[in-house]
Amino acid sequence: MAKTRWETEPEKLLRVDEGFALSDVDPDSTPGFDGDEEKGEKELKRHVDELADLQERLFAESRAGGNRRILLILQAMDTAGKGGIVRHVVGGVDPQGVKLHAFKSPSDEEKAHDFLWRIRRQLPEPGLIGVFDRSHYEDVLIHRVRGFSAPDVIEERYDIIRDFEQELVDDGTTIVKVMLHISSDEQKARLQERLDRPDKNWKFNPGDVDERMLWSQYMDAYQIALERTSTEGAPWYVVPADNKWYARIAVQRLLLNELRGLDPQWPAAEFDVEEQKKRLAGS
Amino acid sequence: MAKTRWETEPEKLLRVDEGFALSDVDPDSTPGFDGDEEKGEKELKRHVDELADLQERLFAESRAGGNRRILLILQAMDTAGKGGIVRHVVGGVDPQGVKLHAFKSPSDEEKAHDFLWRIRRQLPEPGLIGVFDRSHYEDVLIHRVRGFSAPDVIEERYDIIRDFEQELVDDGTTIVKVMLHISSDEQKARLQERLDRPDKNWKFNPGDVDERMLWSQYMDAYQIALERTSTEGAPWYVVPADNKWYARIAVQRLLLNELRGLDPQWPAAEFDVEEQKKRLAGS
Repeated sequence: MAKTRWETEPEKLLRVDEGFALSDVDPDSTPGFDGDEEKGEKELKRHVDELADLQERLFAESRAGGNRRILLILQAMDTAGKGGIVRHVVGGVDPQGVKLHAFKSPSDEEKAHDFLWRIRRQLPEPGLIGVFDRSHYEDVLIHRVRGFSAPDVIEERYDIIRDFEQELVDDGTTIVKVMLHISSDEQKARLQERLDRPDKNWKFNPGDVDERMLWSQYMDAYQIALERTSTEGAPWYVVPADNKWYARIAVQRLLLNELRGLDPQWPAAEFDVEEQKKRLAGS
Repeated sequence: MAKTRWETEPEKLLRVDEGFALSDVDPDSTPGFDGDEEKGEKELKRHVDELADLQERLFAESRAGGNRRILLILQAMDTAGKGGIVRHVVGGVDPQGVKLHAFKSPSDEEKAHDFLWRIRRQLPEPGLIGVFDRSHYEDVLIHRVRGFSAPDVIEERYDIIRDFEQELVDDGTTIVKVMLHISSDEQKARLQERLDRPDKNWKFNPGDVDERMLWSQYMDAYQIALERTSTEGAPWYVVPADNKWYARIAVQRLLLNELRGLDPQWPAAEFDVEEQKKRLAGS
């Protein structure tokens, strides 16, 4: 196991437990990590291969009938860095071992079904790391803030989500739910950069400013969602994300520790190796 | 543009044109590249960022209404290194910019439709690099060798494929079709390694030896497919693949040159930048 500068494992520090308050989390902090940006970038590189190796073992296990898989759920305000997590953390894993889906505004077909219908269609198969860039949590976040669904409908969804996720856990899925938490000021600076740089203009959407105006309503909606759906089987982690480098190593570490815990092994051959060697020699 | 050790561009040397004979291609050769494995690995690393950057530009273009996209089709005998191409060449691109699909034996649902039905469902959206690990070519390769379809049905498929691919080209898709070409001896050595190493046993399938026994029939089926479906709009490239490092830089170069030719640009803002700066400042 490669050395690390983590003094306390992030799952202990960032986990949403009883009494959690989002307003207590400083988006500019770097809990548990002994180092700056430069050290953080080294830490990220140092563990890329280990994450890829563990995923490959999980995949090998699945080929022998194993059912285990990972599902990373990413939620955040715009510009918080979901894309950077995908690129720099998940990007180190073999593309064949990743199932990534970005959930946009639902299509008419999707709207005609219950809100989990489109989610179920994108779940990772055994052996894979699934990544949701946004998720079913939009149905209790933007839906709450924007009033896209009636309050009593949203109210029921927290329980539906808990049951749904428990079902996945029971079926072999390790769920890692991450809210990337940036400050309103940091978002402003990042949006400003998208406006200042012509090569970044395409990433800017005027609607982002509209959403931004509803910042405190979104924070309230997150607080409620985090409280009501952080469970033993599928806990939430709130990752301070004003420092991109920190958010990346924190999510990398969360994934790494879950996979280390699963400790997948190369499966034994399900055929007679010596017999196949003879067949091959004669071919 | 970073320097290169390519003396002749691989698309000129590896393209299947009039009079092509698969039996003339030496799987152990390294056409056009002035260097050995060490130089090849440096070449691969040197161009990872450029490929990722070009894909991001293509994606940006698509957000402004652009329709262009890439489709890399990989076909090969077992162990030829399709997975290595995905991992080492495509793996350098942002996962959000890649749509990868591995086609397995068709399901009952897939069999109930025409052979292109499942293919159409996996085509890349504008801005992406789609990768097919196996493809509709299985329907004229294994189907021919194993007799899964009647000869006259297979006979019709070459034209159907040509029309289908032309339709994609007309719709903005740049198609890069690659056959990774290994020798029977090299395959034997690679299968042997999977049997010798317990951590590789899971990659071995006794059925691989059965397929191997049909080597010359497969080469015949490839020859026919290459001849009949290498078109101006969607040419085939036969990439010598006994040297994994060579196959990787050759495919990387093929993709790179296509993307350089497309020359995607950051799109201009579709909103009034100054107006949005004011809105942001006031938010």
